[in-house]
Amino acid sequence: MAHVAVVEGRPGIVGLLEGYPETGTLLNGLAQALLRRTDGLSPAERELIAAYVSSLNRCVFCTSSHAAAARHLLGDAATVQALVCDGGDLQVSPRLRALLAIAARVQQGGREVGEDDVRAARAEGATDREIHDTVLIAAAFCMYNRYVDGLATWAPDDPAAYDEIGAHLAAHGYVG
Amino acid sequence: MAHVAVVEGRPGIVGLLEGYPETGTLLNGLAQALLRRTDGLSPAERELIAAYVSSLNRCVFCTSSHAAAARHLLGDAATVQALVCDGGDLQVSPRLRALLAIAARVQQGGREVGEDDVRAARAEGATDREIHDTVLIAAAFCMYNRYVDGLATWAPDDPAAYDEIGAHLAAHGYVG
Repeated sequence: MAHVAVVEGRPGIVGLLEGYPETGTLLNGLAQALLRRTDGLSPAERELIAAYVSSLNRCVFCTSSHAAAARHLLGDAATVQALVCDGGDLQVSPRLRALLAIAARVQQGGREVGEDDVRAARAEGATDREIHDTVLIAAAFCMYNRYVDGLATWAPDDPAAYDEIGAHLAAHGYVG
Repeated sequence: MAHVAVVEGRPGIVGLLEGYPETGTLLNGLAQALLRRTDGLSPAERELIAAYVSSLNRCVFCTSSHAAAARHLLGDAATVQALVCDGGDLQVSPRLRALLAIAARVQQGGREVGEDDVRAARAEGATDREIHDTVLIAAAFCMYNRYVDGLATWAPDDPAAYDEIGAHLAAHGYVG
């Protein structure tokens, strides 16, 4: 049972966004801006960063939901699995690999991001916009993950539930 | 120097909010909703939670700015100092003390918040709304702090700069 009243039967962050709409609308709008922008990082790359940071924070609901969204956008289940389970052969571009390394630093703490991390990403062609968006997506998921787990919301066990969430997020995003 | 281009001469998060306005507007709106709402927690209590979590994340710009805002709203510099420097006699209500303990758990990770932490806050009269807002403020500052430090923005050294920021935030909030 969640630590506070949420909308009955709604999983993870959904019951919080609906139960506390004055912040729910803003949190959805921020997710849309961070994960559906198309210049620089693609929506699939953005969802991969979100799923990866959520996995580092051990947030089951967010990891499973954003991994499912990334699968639907990318059409490559093996890459998503390798990333969030930290195993297997991660088939991503050197640029995205360097940006994921920055995201992992951000998850540990803002002060953990070093000049060398940023230099490595630039050497692979990452732009200011991509580095900025990577840091802010990673930082934002340190918020969303803590909101979801800090209030002990319900995370479904059934993989089919997440596949449905992921398909919806891939098709419709986070608003409306 | 910051890791990416920001608006020249603007400290901390300010150069990021202005340089990346499509997220800046949303991040300001979220801060306004979280820190200036008046039911349940007061704006002064909200700023204290923000300053405390920022101090735990060792984010100099956010700690100094929100501590200054709390001083201006609360009119009690000793309490703010005791909270963000983790020293001296912290003169806050048992209810706020229990909520600050929840905020400290959230800073460590969402899964660190236990039933007992929530029960202790309820025993001191904390409502669902106050527990919800405490968790979300603490989670949000785990984002803002990582955004500010993950991009290596400039934090002024001069205490007078923060006093000016705090006075502005106390009087005008985070929008417009």
